[in-house]
Amino acid sequence: MTHSNIAAACQALSHLDLDTNPNVLRQKSRDFFWYSPVLKARLDEVCGDFVVSPRNEAEVIEVLRTCYAHDVAVTVRGAGTGNYGQAMPLAGGCVMHMQNMAQIKEISTGRVVVEPGCLLKDIDLACREESGQELRMISSTWSTATIGGYIAGGSGGIGSVHWGSLRDFGNILRIRVITMEKEPRVMDITGADMARVSHAYGTNGIITEIEMPLAPAYEWCDVFLAFDTFEDAMACADDVAHEDGILLKLASVFEAPTAHAYFKRVQPYVSAGTHLVGLMVAPQSMDGFLAFLEANAPSARLIYRSDQSDWARSPGHVFEYSWNHTTLRALKVDPSITYLQIRFAGDEKRAQVETMRRKFEGEVITHLEVTREHGRPIFTGLSMVKFTSEARLDEIVAAHEEIGAMIFNPHRYTLEEGGRQSTDERQLKFKAEADPKGLLNPGKMISWHDPDWTYDEMYSFPDMQQRRSS
Amino acid sequence: MTHSNIAAACQALSHLDLDTNPNVLRQKSRDFFWYSPVLKARLDEVCGDFVVSPRNEAEVIEVLRTCYAHDVAVTVRGAGTGNYGQAMPLAGGCVMHMQNMAQIKEISTGRVVVEPGCLLKDIDLACREESGQELRMISSTWSTATIGGYIAGGSGGIGSVHWGSLRDFGNILRIRVITMEKEPRVMDITGADMARVSHAYGTNGIITEIEMPLAPAYEWCDVFLAFDTFEDAMACADDVAHEDGILLKLASVFEAPTAHAYFKRVQPYVSAGTHLVGLMVAPQSMDGFLAFLEANAPSARLIYRSDQSDWARSPGHVFEYSWNHTTLRALKVDPSITYLQIRFAGDEKRAQVETMRRKFEGEVITHLEVTREHGRPIFTGLSMVKFTSEARLDEIVAAHEEIGAMIFNPHRYTLEEGGRQSTDERQLKFKAEADPKGLLNPGKMISWHDPDWTYDEMYSFPDMQQRRSS
Repeated sequence: MTHSNIAAACQALSHLDLDTNPNVLRQKSRDFFWYSPVLKARLDEVCGDFVVSPRNEAEVIEVLRTCYAHDVAVTVRGAGTGNYGQAMPLAGGCVMHMQNMAQIKEISTGRVVVEPGCLLKDIDLACREESGQELRMISSTWSTATIGGYIAGGSGGIGSVHWGSLRDFGNILRIRVITMEKEPRVMDITGADMARVSHAYGTNGIITEIEMPLAPAYEWCDVFLAFDTFEDAMACADDVAHEDGILLKLASVFEAPTAHAYFKRVQPYVSAGTHLVGLMVAPQSMDGFLAFLEANAPSARLIYRSDQSDWARSPGHVFEYSWNHTTLRALKVDPSITYLQIRFAGDEKRAQVETMRRKFEGEVITHLEVTREHGRPIFTGLSMVKFTSEARLDEIVAAHEEIGAMIFNPHRYTLEEGGRQSTDERQLKFKAEADPKGLLNPGKMISWHDPDWTYDEMYSFPDMQQRRSS
Repeated sequence: MTHSNIAAACQALSHLDLDTNPNVLRQKSRDFFWYSPVLKARLDEVCGDFVVSPRNEAEVIEVLRTCYAHDVAVTVRGAGTGNYGQAMPLAGGCVMHMQNMAQIKEISTGRVVVEPGCLLKDIDLACREESGQELRMISSTWSTATIGGYIAGGSGGIGSVHWGSLRDFGNILRIRVITMEKEPRVMDITGADMARVSHAYGTNGIITEIEMPLAPAYEWCDVFLAFDTFEDAMACADDVAHEDGILLKLASVFEAPTAHAYFKRVQPYVSAGTHLVGLMVAPQSMDGFLAFLEANAPSARLIYRSDQSDWARSPGHVFEYSWNHTTLRALKVDPSITYLQIRFAGDEKRAQVETMRRKFEGEVITHLEVTREHGRPIFTGLSMVKFTSEARLDEIVAAHEEIGAMIFNPHRYTLEEGGRQSTDERQLKFKAEADPKGLLNPGKMISWHDPDWTYDEMYSFPDMQQRRSS
């Protein structure tokens, strides 16, 4: 930022856990944006000026007060497992890393209170041990991702087939945020106000405490089903998610050759033509699930169930094949792979998927997650794309939009372009209150910087600060 | 039955818990069939010849073997809280009462194994105390009804807004049944075979053990919402059931003047024009629920929540106002009241309800329960009818069927007429195996007695045995 006094802020905060080592700085200024060749080309040199890791809320307040005084931008981050560049300091300045705030404060029936730097995995393990409970939903990066990053940068995940999205009423109970003002305020946000601050990439407040609802923890049975046709695989996953008596945590569909080409430990049990469905089924629902298969999905071949496996090598958690771990596994084999996030909903959703699948055969490999949206199962597509050019990627996006499938574009770094391409008035209004100088994660909310933006082209943040040569 | 040798069977079973006292016999030969004036006129004098209450499975087998040998009909019953005459011995003979088989055998994560005579309430209390769990669904007669009667004679209830129906895959895990043959067989039925024996009124086997799935037990918050218009009340209950993040166990809609006229302890807080919605909300979902109300149901007035009540007298459990307890409360005030069970589903469901509500204003009082059917919330109507004549009742039924609402007629005592008016081939086929002489609960399965029945009129069991004057 033009008037930033980085040196003064660093000096004032030098008693905290602060780092200016260039290698550390570069590493802590990145997330998994490189899944996108488009973002890779634009953000690869983005770098903050210093990293500070507050140990408690008082230190968060001190950092914000100091950076406000010196006009220094603050970009908050957790583990950096997001894919939209959410946690990358486009304007440089302070990277606030939440790793030191990882306390689990309270576990009770149906609820857990945590600090934002807690790993999803650590929350789940503690809740399971203490109370037989776990988070309603998690990301596929469960073992490394923080809850704060998940709330601020995620939308749903494993568990969304039952509980819907993070933004749905009741899926986040309370967020405590600190504003970036001369005297930072502490606010406990609940209920309908949650939409102001959740999924805002840290653009309108720094989260210091989170209260989440819990679900019962079961010894989920991991299942892989093999199919000869994609239509059967898609129908099976969709139909089983409509069975109210069968408790699921995950229902994923992977078009061939995903399983054979990219899922190394699954490969011996499938062929290149195998379409795969991955599921997490509550153990008490396994009998009902098998009865469902027999009656409604006779073409399914049950090739793996974790509770009765004879595979030489365990494939690990099925959820670590789902959501964006699918893309990650594919990327390791074929670096040309990237992905799109697509919403297929309504009575025509299966037909829409088929139309796109046929249109882009060999170029787009269909990957669907069944999720609930306002009471009905829909498909959240995270289809893999063999990248050739930005222009071609835009054509594929346009083709989906033409048939009524909505794209949440992971090749953009702003909230609006990764979402519904429109201003979120609640977030914008709250930012004016909570961040009057616009210092929190600059460049991520188009409506703040350029209220009349028309979305005709990709937004490019004018104050982008690239890494200075060292 | 023509060739029954009642005396010989009684003699052979005299060492068991057996009763022939006429008052006891009359009482144990009845259920709540009298909700229906149609059934009342036809079944009021139905009576068995003796009641036997086996203490264990071996005694069940002995009773069946003996009755088979002497051609004596056996009608099994629990607490007799059903409304379709399910447990009434139309052909006389043996009434098998399951009250002595009420053991809770095993509680584990997600599962409970019980004997059929257990009360739903006792199962829930034991599961809650031992494991923090409870049954997925219960009937409004929770405190008096048995699990065996619920499985064999019920279809869903409180909990169906989340878990769907008892018949859905996964909502019953295992049923152990004894066949009625020369040498009775013991069969453990699971998976898709469950449909052969669940909801069969005891016509094709006697249940001796049941394994049910469990859900987490919460301190459910009971809620009453008041509305000035029925449309708003119906929309609110329907909409909140579509919120995947808000965990509900019940969502009921009561048209005015139900709350004022029939709900005595609610009356001081409503007017004759008040439309009421009753809900059970998980405590961790209350914040999200209140946010939902503010955003999507601004006309709702929250008049009661059990966790913060200032009512002079507690209304008791909200679920004891729901399902057929609504009818029961109305009947106590207005003996002319009876009811219909109606399925309103699909995109037109609200419009269908409104059409019927206007057509029969003052005569039919709309009562809806939101339930899930294959992944989507629908309305199970248990609307109250001010009864005038059987012909008029048939007209009201026909009007519903004309607009596409399906009637499960509670003024009929056969499985088919209370269901979808068609032969259930799986049940019929299994009955031929399990009850070759047709001695189990005769008169309840039309397809057994009269395979060519066309449903043009009410079925009348030709071998009905009325009470002999004492």
